Amino acid sequence: MGIRTVLIGAGGGSSYFLVGLERLKSREVPPVGIPLAGLLRAHRPEDINVVAVYDVDNSKVGRDMYSIASKLVPASNIPRSLKDIVVSRGLHCGSLGGLNVDATGLEDVIGSPERAFEEFVNQLAKLRPDVIVNVITTEPMRFVDSEGELVRLAPQCALGATLAYAYAAAEYSTKTGNPVAFINLTPPATANSPGVVSAFERAGALVMGDDAATGATPLTADLLEHMAERGRRVLSIAQFNIGGNSDFLSLTEPERNHSKEVTKSSMVSDILGYDAPHYIKPTGYLEPLGDRKFVAMHIEYESFGGFRDEVIVNARINDKSNLAGLMASAIPVAKSLLERGVRGTYATANRFYMKMPGPRGSKNISKIVAYQDLLRELKKLDII
Amino acid sequence: MGIRTVLIGAGGGSSYFLVGLERLKSREVPPVGIPLAGLLRAHRPEDINVVAVYDVDNSKVGRDMYSIASKLVPASNIPRSLKDIVVSRGLHCGSLGGLNVDATGLEDVIGSPERAFEEFVNQLAKLRPDVIVNVITTEPMRFVDSEGELVRLAPQCALGATLAYAYAAAEYSTKTGNPVAFINLTPPATANSPGVVSAFERAGALVMGDDAATGATPLTADLLEHMAERGRRVLSIAQFNIGGNSDFLSLTEPERNHSKEVTKSSMVSDILGYDAPHYIKPTGYLEPLGDRKFVAMHIEYESFGGFRDEVIVNARINDKSNLAGLMASAIPVAKSLLERGVRGTYATANRFYMKMPGPRGSKNISKIVAYQDLLRELKKLDII
Amino acid sequence: MGIRTVLIGAGGGSSYFLVGLERLKSREVPPVGIPLAGLLRAHRPEDINVVAVYDVDNSKVGRDMYSIASKLVPASNIPRSLKDIVVSRGLHCGSLGGLNVDATGLEDVIGSPERAFEEFVNQLAKLRPDVIVNVITTEPMRFVDSEGELVRLAPQCALGATLAYAYAAAEYSTKTGNPVAFINLTPPATANSPGVVSAFERAGALVMGDDAATGATPLTADLLEHMAERGRRVLSIAQFNIGGNSDFLSLTEPERNHSKEVTKSSMVSDILGYDAPHYIKPTGYLEPLGDRKFVAMHIEYESFGGFRDEVIVNARINDKSNLAGLMASAIPVAKSLLERGVRGTYATANRFYMKMPGPRGSKNISKIVAYQDLLRELKKLDII
Amino acid sequence: MGIRTVLIGAGGGSSYFLVGLERLKSREVPPVGIPLAGLLRAHRPEDINVVAVYDVDNSKVGRDMYSIASKLVPASNIPRSLKDIVVSRGLHCGSLGGLNVDATGLEDVIGSPERAFEEFVNQLAKLRPDVIVNVITTEPMRFVDSEGELVRLAPQCALGATLAYAYAAAEYSTKTGNPVAFINLTPPATANSPGVVSAFERAGALVMGDDAATGATPLTADLLEHMAERGRRVLSIAQFNIGGNSDFLSLTEPERNHSKEVTKSSMVSDILGYDAPHYIKPTGYLEPLGDRKFVAMHIEYESFGGFRDEVIVNARINDKSNLAGLMASAIPVAKSLLERGVRGTYATANRFYMKMPGPRGSKNISKIVAYQDLLRELKKLDII
Repeated sequence: MGIRTVLIGAGGGSSYFLVGLERLKSREVPPVGIPLAGLLRAHRPEDINVVAVYDVDNSKVGRDMYSIASKLVPASNIPRSLKDIVVSRGLHCGSLGGLNVDATGLEDVIGSPERAFEEFVNQLAKLRPDVIVNVITTEPMRFVDSEGELVRLAPQCALGATLAYAYAAAEYSTKTGNPVAFINLTPPATANSPGVVSAFERAGALVMGDDAATGATPLTADLLEHMAERGRRVLSIAQFNIGGNSDFLSLTEPERNHSKEVTKSSMVSDILGYDAPHYIKPTGYLEPLGDRKFVAMHIEYESFGGFRDEVIVNARINDKSNLAGLMASAIPVAKSLLERGVRGTYATANRFYMKMPGPRGSKNISKIVAYQDLLRELKKLDII
Repeated sequence: MGIRTVLIGAGGGSSYFLVGLERLKSREVPPVGIPLAGLLRAHRPEDINVVAVYDVDNSKVGRDMYSIASKLVPASNIPRSLKDIVVSRGLHCGSLGGLNVDATGLEDVIGSPERAFEEFVNQLAKLRPDVIVNVITTEPMRFVDSEGELVRLAPQCALGATLAYAYAAAEYSTKTGNPVAFINLTPPATANSPGVVSAFERAGALVMGDDAATGATPLTADLLEHMAERGRRVLSIAQFNIGGNSDFLSLTEPERNHSKEVTKSSMVSDILGYDAPHYIKPTGYLEPLGDRKFVAMHIEYESFGGFRDEVIVNARINDKSNLAGLMASAIPVAKSLLERGVRGTYATANRFYMKMPGPRGSKNISKIVAYQDLLRELKKLDII
Repeated sequence: MGIRTVLIGAGGGSSYFLVGLERLKSREVPPVGIPLAGLLRAHRPEDINVVAVYDVDNSKVGRDMYSIASKLVPASNIPRSLKDIVVSRGLHCGSLGGLNVDATGLEDVIGSPERAFEEFVNQLAKLRPDVIVNVITTEPMRFVDSEGELVRLAPQCALGATLAYAYAAAEYSTKTGNPVAFINLTPPATANSPGVVSAFERAGALVMGDDAATGATPLTADLLEHMAERGRRVLSIAQFNIGGNSDFLSLTEPERNHSKEVTKSSMVSDILGYDAPHYIKPTGYLEPLGDRKFVAMHIEYESFGGFRDEVIVNARINDKSNLAGLMASAIPVAKSLLERGVRGTYATANRFYMKMPGPRGSKNISKIVAYQDLLRELKKLDII
Repeated sequence: MGIRTVLIGAGGGSSYFLVGLERLKSREVPPVGIPLAGLLRAHRPEDINVVAVYDVDNSKVGRDMYSIASKLVPASNIPRSLKDIVVSRGLHCGSLGGLNVDATGLEDVIGSPERAFEEFVNQLAKLRPDVIVNVITTEPMRFVDSEGELVRLAPQCALGATLAYAYAAAEYSTKTGNPVAFINLTPPATANSPGVVSAFERAGALVMGDDAATGATPLTADLLEHMAERGRRVLSIAQFNIGGNSDFLSLTEPERNHSKEVTKSSMVSDILGYDAPHYIKPTGYLEPLGDRKFVAMHIEYESFGGFRDEVIVNARINDKSNLAGLMASAIPVAKSLLERGVRGTYATANRFYMKMPGPRGSKNISKIVAYQDLLRELKKLDII
């Protein structure tokens, strides 16, 4: 009966994911763009079964994913099976504040955050998900040091939506005894918050995060590793990103942008071993670029004997297609890890899938190195 | 007394290497651009002691490396200590044929290839090198299947200069009992020729090769690994290189160019697992670019759901500085491997340092993966 | 009743042109990509009426342009009106030699080049074209100094297909008294051959050529003008082109490639005033790129005070769409010029539309300058 | 005795200019990077004679240009003749506010803006300049509608430094009867302010401005012209700039950045004829890039038949060397224009030299077109 999966956020990521997943299941497309796809043995991408999608945008709640995906995915032939997935109302917790979206959370309907939180946990108990994936709009960054803080503040919506959902997942696990995996593909700290990780450990559940390693950042990580291994001294790194979807629009809000900047910048000193001067930020919004953002990167470095070389990278990258492919890989991996008894969080997987891999203090290694480590560990765990 | 080293070829590679090495020894420059530099414990780059440089170009033989490097290295302050290194006459074996260079080999002076070969081995016996590094101008590709073929043809100059030098190194080892490492940084197959590897095994010596992994090829390898790990389907790869030094001039000869093309192309199918359509070749000669070649690369690929993305890389890369940095790393590594008893060839190191890693049949893995493997093995061997 | 137009060559250029033209006429698409489109008053792109298409490829002759365009134009909705245009057999004159195409010319069917030539002129006399556009596969370069040479050799097929077609056009004009414009969008010298120009003058006809200014060459011309006007000293220019259509395949033949190289290289010294070192060539064939070739260009230059700057341009350019847009502009311009009495050739238009503008000796000025000159002259002639 | 010239601003622009000018005069370097250099007949770049440099930065006032240029120009051999040029104290008018520079204006020393203004005019009267060039740090944008406003507010420092200097230049001209040319190479509106232009007309003087067309903006203008002439429909334009000098540091101040954005954006609709979606801004500060900023540009457009193409430009551009080259051209041109009786402002020259050419309402045409117009007019005026 597959991997029961709940998606939080009915935006581009979920839409691309659902369209691709349906096509994959009907063998219309091969499993391209899914890390580990050919190797996974315990559970495979085709086994994913999406049982619910939550959102708070009133133009989405109550509508089916066929009509939503038709607007967000630039493809003909949106699978009609998506008509069966209707978006449910989730928790808002102010997560769309300032973004000019007409949003109503369960807490607005019910009149109390705590009771909305309880209601959401109850809904999960009925849906019995194995995996919950959070792909809501980027919220401002937040860390939770202690489990007490999480327990007290999350149900009041005082930590934002992502942390409310994460804690609800842990509560659902505790309450039902079903071990769940919560995969946070957005910046707020879940796997990076000690308080969250210990809540998941106690609940016998798994949290993976934070912030999906999509776009140009994984490429930058691997380029920096390449430089570092050759002993080159990186003198400067400039990276620009500009795109035309609502992600870029929302990043014109400084707090959200800062959130993204933090998850990207730690890698420079982590990989190179020194903090090379760098400018790495989402830069702007330009509507016609759509989901296929334009990336420009410039790296200048010193090689043997004091000579200077330069590498420039330009790319058109569809972040949403990337994100969807990571989802299709991370969901069966998470389910498999749960079955092998992994609890709390799992750094080895986070380091490959995430821009800011938890737990806190994890070094941000290059993606190729992270992948090789993940291969070795998944083999040991008999997952691939 | 350091690592006694003989360089074959008094061109740009040796010049950049000697200039950088002297500056490194005098602490004028830090050990930038040398893979593993900070980790090597058994022997370090600074321990390299160049005892001879061989060439056959009459404008170089008999001259000192100060005057040669002054022409080839675009830097002020060429170290005056290079005046002490005078270029000796080596074996020609037709290696510069067709290149408009006035060249005279030992065989021309002595009047017999076999006696010239013997003379060269005798000179090595006096020089007592630990490591011999071959960086002569690219010759047409050649493989040697059996040791018998090597023993019979190499001393007659019938296999070209690189294979003559390689066999001379093995003979020197046999004759003197000094284990030597021959590092071939050019395309002709030494570590990739079963006949050569077995000759080195028998001589108790080590051969590393072939064709130094400089320029854009290692970067391409790592980019392809990056794509492969994300499950992307690479649709096409175009890579152009244009430069202004004698390497590019010599590659306008189709046979030499083909030699380079072979060492570059195997990596596509080796890393991706399928032979993505590609065009990867040195493209042209443009004098003002000098050693800092211009590279342009275009990769188009399919990601999850059938969407197409593109990555374009442009770079200015000084091949000679790159090559010199690899030499500064490979020489102490080779000496350390000899001391740990490694004989024949050593795939793990070849895979990192070379474009066409021997022994024959070795898969051309990405450089980051090769480096991680090398790290692990050098640690086990107590070299780093 | 429009501008009666004959197309020579039923390849990508004609296919893109016919598809776009039909859509333009049915107002499905706006007149985008057509130089001067909004300004032309005497005759407009929509007035073009294609009365015949000629080719010698047996897989095309006798078939309709709907089925041909369906293979060559990557678009859905090929206009069904193209079913009415059936490809006629033209002159071969060996133009596809060596290209692995099954080709039969009128001369093969009739058994004599001279009679085939006569037959072709007769067909033109029936078709009564105003404009004939030559877009056949690139032939090796050829110049014709005297009219006598043209008259003697062209009908024997001894000058290749382009010059045979050009002379046939002049003959048709002489014979019928209908002034015709022959627009040669391929490299062989028509407007650049004094012998051809004088034949057209005598026939009261107009020849425009040679080699359509599509792709990256016009952009390079304008970039060089930009540099020149700023007084910069260009140190080197490298330009690579790689594509996946039959043009690039045919250019792997050295003679055809040379033909392209010639038309591109004169612009460097013409625009800069000195022959800056350059490498500008079609570089390779890579099938998945299709008509959208990849271009990489590197320009290094010196600015005030001896500082060095660099500009790198990368592009994906659909040559066929470009070519089709130029056709849609040049045809009404040519018809209008004829009506204003212009005979022989017309340098001002050639300089804008062509890579190698005739008549021989014309300076290859930048495209922006050429366009401004053309604007002024067309205004004087009351064409715009 | 040359063209008596006063420079306002002792920063990078003036330093590069003075270094290059001295080398040009001593024939150490050819007149590279100077528009029109080889054509100018009336006055030439070598005729420029800098009689004073003004600044308000206390680390510069009272020091010689040799010591200042030694810090700002990355070249060996700064001409020692620059020791003779000592920086004088100019008007501050708050122009460096918020920039963490220790600045003292004449008004601070004297205790009154009006008297400082008067004193500055008196100093000009003694210096007798033919040309005054303003290259101070970018101030927030400001326009002056009426001459009355200028006369009232400029001497009070209420319009910022640039407008105070401009009006002082006009006053100097009125007072002495020497016609002066004031060339404003920064954003505040001088030639774009009707009030300023009429003041210059009345004074019998000439104002040229505003904001020097350096960097990537002229290139963008010419690329857009190229697109427009081909009838292409530009879908989006993204342009990023990042550099490491004080210009980029000062642009991290939003008001100053906005000032730059305004001068860059008008060109899109002026050249294309419609406001294509665009993002064109100085983007960030990255110290190691120095004066050689990195530029990345992406243009996507539609060509004939609805096909989409893309052009990407990457560049390393030394703005300061560019600016200095423009100064070396504009100064003799301005002097020649004065001698030919040109008064007020001169749109034809502004359109080539400036990003925001005055007078107000001037269309921002492409640089190549502007240059061709300028050529024609300067020929008519017998200047070239």
